[in-house]
Amino acid sequence: MVATGICRTDDHVLKGALKGIDFPVILGHEGAGIIESIGDGVTGLKPGDKVIPLCIPQCGKCSSCLNPNTNCCLKTHLSESQNVMPDKTSRFLCKGKAAYHFLWTSTFSEYTVVPVDSVAKIDNRAPMDKACLFGCGFSTGYGAVINTAKVEPGSTCAVFGLGGIGLSTVIGCKSAGAERIIAIDINSGKFHIAKDFGATECINPLNYSKPIQEVITEMTNGGVHYSFECIGNTDTMKAALECCHIGYGTSVIIGEAPSAAQISFDPILLFTGRTWKGSIFGGWKSKESVPRLVDEFMANKFNLDGLVSHTLPFHQINKGFELLRSGNSIRTILMF
Amino acid sequence: MVATGICRTDDHVLKGALKGIDFPVILGHEGAGIIESIGDGVTGLKPGDKVIPLCIPQCGKCSSCLNPNTNCCLKTHLSESQNVMPDKTSRFLCKGKAAYHFLWTSTFSEYTVVPVDSVAKIDNRAPMDKACLFGCGFSTGYGAVINTAKVEPGSTCAVFGLGGIGLSTVIGCKSAGAERIIAIDINSGKFHIAKDFGATECINPLNYSKPIQEVITEMTNGGVHYSFECIGNTDTMKAALECCHIGYGTSVIIGEAPSAAQISFDPILLFTGRTWKGSIFGGWKSKESVPRLVDEFMANKFNLDGLVSHTLPFHQINKGFELLRSGNSIRTILMF
Repeated sequence: MVATGICRTDDHVLKGALKGIDFPVILGHEGAGIIESIGDGVTGLKPGDKVIPLCIPQCGKCSSCLNPNTNCCLKTHLSESQNVMPDKTSRFLCKGKAAYHFLWTSTFSEYTVVPVDSVAKIDNRAPMDKACLFGCGFSTGYGAVINTAKVEPGSTCAVFGLGGIGLSTVIGCKSAGAERIIAIDINSGKFHIAKDFGATECINPLNYSKPIQEVITEMTNGGVHYSFECIGNTDTMKAALECCHIGYGTSVIIGEAPSAAQISFDPILLFTGRTWKGSIFGGWKSKESVPRLVDEFMANKFNLDGLVSHTLPFHQINKGFELLRSGNSIRTILMF
Repeated sequence: MVATGICRTDDHVLKGALKGIDFPVILGHEGAGIIESIGDGVTGLKPGDKVIPLCIPQCGKCSSCLNPNTNCCLKTHLSESQNVMPDKTSRFLCKGKAAYHFLWTSTFSEYTVVPVDSVAKIDNRAPMDKACLFGCGFSTGYGAVINTAKVEPGSTCAVFGLGGIGLSTVIGCKSAGAERIIAIDINSGKFHIAKDFGATECINPLNYSKPIQEVITEMTNGGVHYSFECIGNTDTMKAALECCHIGYGTSVIIGEAPSAAQISFDPILLFTGRTWKGSIFGGWKSKESVPRLVDEFMANKFNLDGLVSHTLPFHQINKGFELLRSGNSIRTILMF
């Protein structure tokens, strides 16, 4: 591994908030690295290739991979455990004992072992401290706009949460031609970055006495065309649905909620014509799309500079998690 | 009025389960009648025309009417009360006292008064005992498949609830070319009718010890492409979402839940690529679409015979409500 980002999903696991994880585990799922060696029968990859581990595999053979409308390969942890390799073995030892894999990526390690369906070869000129963002944050936020919501030019969008995924969602909205992009965060310190990426208005729920969904509904004469939840908080997911316009508003859940979290809502919100969707890894079929996204980045289609707020040496990983929890960072990248 | 159906939404009001209704009220919203007289300035309609009152208006001027993606005209009760006419007067007297309107339709009356935006002129040859179904049940179920879900040929669909709306949904699925249409009801006596309309399999949750969504998921190798909730029950709405396939399954809420009913669900269901939508009046822009649907019916595109289980004289309206509550009727039509 050369670089890896820290994502809230990793923190969910540390807090015991995601089920189905075995400990001890090597976390991390937003990395970029260089192939050291390949297994027998692996084709299309060779030592020295720059690669991105894929937290959603693309086996290319399951019914989901064969369906053009989904990227939820049935080999993901959503269907079967990814805590060990497909052959049911762990390839990690820690102090002499086996440690478990995480999402078949485990990027918080100088070396990792990943199945061939869980790794994408990218342009060997790509800068690794940015390329790792294509392993989760950027692809997830940007793709939710492009693939899942399919935002049209002239739309009004609301983006809840301005971490790495939220800002990538703002980039997506701008790229899709949205006319108004309303960015929401309880940390106003992030607003200048959101505006750099294309947000037209930034609002802080702490500055209002009424619920923020009501504020947005009033600002937009009845609600937005598209809203995006980029936090993983069930209250915000509901607010994001509620600020959608009756009849045609669409809300997309991008943030992963802690396991067992439930949302309680009034079905009239859907009955009256709203749509509620979710997006995992931005809807991208991972193995074929990540190299293309990196190519577009190399062709200067995206400027991701503002997405990385902190770069730390890998041994300061715990400081990186503290930054995540403080709400004061966008993305912290660890360099090996 | 010549004919009117009885719909569960009318019963919700009687039970006090829909908010925003004023009493005493003249219910009914699925009718067919003949114009007796028109108001000053009304164009395009004349005494003697056969018409269908529209429970969702189409004013043609509001932002929703101008938006091709929604039929939720902002003149509906969802935005402002329809308990009185747009000029804020009631046109009904009962024993000398004013009675309120319902949805600007109030079809449970020999004579009613409706705004011009809430009535559609139909083919004068149309049989009224069938035509009234285009005022709610048939249009709602059929349109949810065609307009809201946009079911593709070859799809697998699940339809929860085999009342008038559910069977109309089955008709829509068949018409859209669905390969498998799984019909679900706790009254197996309705299964032969569902099969006549195109259901390929019929299942009764009372015959299984496990939740019906698990049964359907197993029957379909992971879930259906599309599910439709045609009852208005929050538990069934959740089950309908849960039986959708990960990654691409779409569930549509067609039944109107009682006011204040809440659904509690795990957001991972959406996060993993499912879509949850709602449909009101089948997504049809009412005034322009109902005459077209009646024309298609007159051209034998639909055979609606099985949708009407009982025909009663209007004075037996209470018996009609009893049939609705018993679960043993499909649609009861009252004839004036």
